[in-house]
Amino acid sequence: MVGFACTNGERFAFPSRIHALPGRYPPIIPYVTTVGELGEFPLIERIASAIDRASLAAATAGGFSLALGIGDDAAAWSLARGVQVTTTDTAVENVHFTQQTTPWADLGWRTWAANVSDIISMGATPLVGVVTLGIPGSLDVTAIDDLYVGMIDACRAYGTLIAGGDIVSSRDVFVSVALMGVCEGELLRRDVAQPGDVIGVSGPLGGSAGGLRVLQRGLMSSDALLTAHRRPTPRVSTGQALLDAGVTGAMDVSDGLVADLAKLCRASGVGARVDSPLVPVASALHESFSDEESLLCALGGGEDYEVLFTGPRQAVERAVASIDGAAVIGEIVTDTPGRVIVLGADGNELEVSDAGWEHLST
Amino acid sequence: MVGFACTNGERFAFPSRIHALPGRYPPIIPYVTTVGELGEFPLIERIASAIDRASLAAATAGGFSLALGIGDDAAAWSLARGVQVTTTDTAVENVHFTQQTTPWADLGWRTWAANVSDIISMGATPLVGVVTLGIPGSLDVTAIDDLYVGMIDACRAYGTLIAGGDIVSSRDVFVSVALMGVCEGELLRRDVAQPGDVIGVSGPLGGSAGGLRVLQRGLMSSDALLTAHRRPTPRVSTGQALLDAGVTGAMDVSDGLVADLAKLCRASGVGARVDSPLVPVASALHESFSDEESLLCALGGGEDYEVLFTGPRQAVERAVASIDGAAVIGEIVTDTPGRVIVLGADGNELEVSDAGWEHLST
Repeated sequence: MVGFACTNGERFAFPSRIHALPGRYPPIIPYVTTVGELGEFPLIERIASAIDRASLAAATAGGFSLALGIGDDAAAWSLARGVQVTTTDTAVENVHFTQQTTPWADLGWRTWAANVSDIISMGATPLVGVVTLGIPGSLDVTAIDDLYVGMIDACRAYGTLIAGGDIVSSRDVFVSVALMGVCEGELLRRDVAQPGDVIGVSGPLGGSAGGLRVLQRGLMSSDALLTAHRRPTPRVSTGQALLDAGVTGAMDVSDGLVADLAKLCRASGVGARVDSPLVPVASALHESFSDEESLLCALGGGEDYEVLFTGPRQAVERAVASIDGAAVIGEIVTDTPGRVIVLGADGNELEVSDAGWEHLST
Repeated sequence: MVGFACTNGERFAFPSRIHALPGRYPPIIPYVTTVGELGEFPLIERIASAIDRASLAAATAGGFSLALGIGDDAAAWSLARGVQVTTTDTAVENVHFTQQTTPWADLGWRTWAANVSDIISMGATPLVGVVTLGIPGSLDVTAIDDLYVGMIDACRAYGTLIAGGDIVSSRDVFVSVALMGVCEGELLRRDVAQPGDVIGVSGPLGGSAGGLRVLQRGLMSSDALLTAHRRPTPRVSTGQALLDAGVTGAMDVSDGLVADLAKLCRASGVGARVDSPLVPVASALHESFSDEESLLCALGGGEDYEVLFTGPRQAVERAVASIDGAAVIGEIVTDTPGRVIVLGADGNELEVSDAGWEHLST
């Protein structure tokens, strides 16, 4: 089964020939409406059928080769070259998304894209992942169909594969992806920033947070903010552009610029100063929000999946020149590890304590 | 950081030198009782500190080498030989466990062991994994301490590493592991069983299900059943013993013998006949249950993490002779794919429709 474009996961137990059954996608089973009525095995079959039909392009970087397809306790693959890079990222209902503001297909796209972003920000190429679904038996089957439509869209966009996964019963929906990529050169890291380094970001920020506010408040807005929220598109080329420019310090902005910069600074044992007028703000924010709220979205909103990077000024400026939308936004300084100061246009420090996403706030 | 025994995950953003801070494990922070009060970052620091102190033995099979340690968007490693085998398995509160019947340390052990079992049943050696925790902010910090004590115990027992992970807020607790192993020879598969093959199982079944019943009903029992439920111990040697004997068909028994055999049969397009008097029943079951209930535990109870295997009679008998506690239990037959018939001592078919674990039952 080497080269078979979609593979298997732990609980995916069915023969690959089922994939070839005639019928429309998604298969129509009119008398079944919930995943509980459909049952675990037919649901897995249904998902795998969708993946199989969609996964015509195979991942190829690093001499990637699939050894075992859908239908066993685990998926199997090999890399001929490079270092394997593995991340995991999860979306939980009513924490990271609500059914009111996030269509299922967008949930699938976003969860996959969030993992792709982590791989990119290591300087690696995303390849293959496994998906865990936590779902209540009462969920409509069409929700799962739509979820995989979005996830498969993201797979196609990034040349990646769904290799299988696990389905478990859960009161709240959660979608967890573990994604693997390959790095054939140097790894981009969080722990190499030094005082005197300058800080860059790969593109405009705040669009996703703005889109969420538009949805939550029922505001008027162009499609740009909604698209930024629902279909963030991390760029695979960014990692390579950073390495080509000689930058080796990087992480993705998933929880918010200030919060994530603080993490990078902690990892490197340094502090940072951000000049807020330099921070690229998603232009569509100004259509719906004041300048102040737009800046707050850019400083504190997460899920834009741009890359934050640090390095010597010359290297960072080379990188900024080669990445569309990138900008220099500040400097690494000697300070309490993890302390980030944001300066306003007047040079005074801004209060941004509310910026960023705290995962365990009660 | 090559060779550093514990690595990193997506949201694990802190410098490795924090690991070296003096203090007891787990660090005592007397004025903090819940993970919400402690906060995401200190919780990750606390977990990583525990992992770091414990992970002195590094995974070594397949020329495994760790490229990047804790503190970045992703973990990184390489294999010099073999095929990578990847699985994922998740435990959800009130679905797979309750706080009443499963101490946190046992939850950690069991979730890791369930993934180890999947890797073993592919004929591979488990190496390294990432852990996603879904937890409410109101959870006691000591619960997480205990969870990792159990998971690290399992890591030590199997020579495996926790490479990082993700922490997300969730109303119900869930623990999801994605585990990687290496296979340097042939893979054991579900889809190669043929009519005429005989069926073997690697050891006694039903102990875990019996332990759960003892806990739920407050029955008297020896420790054997409770240990089977709380600390199942899949055996890494089983996969190699099967391959040495010439067996290539296998899967682990996680959802129950009959349910899992049905999956193997579906994957291979065959049916199966099980002779129930041949099924090895965990001996401690008879202390607490009738013969009939003991057999039902063995046929339908999951989570013993023994291996089910199929192959030509001679190969299976060689395997059974080399695996302590293993037995031949039946035969693969031509039938509707996935149909499993269980025969009683009198040769009549038993009704076992309730056997096995359905993940989405409402």
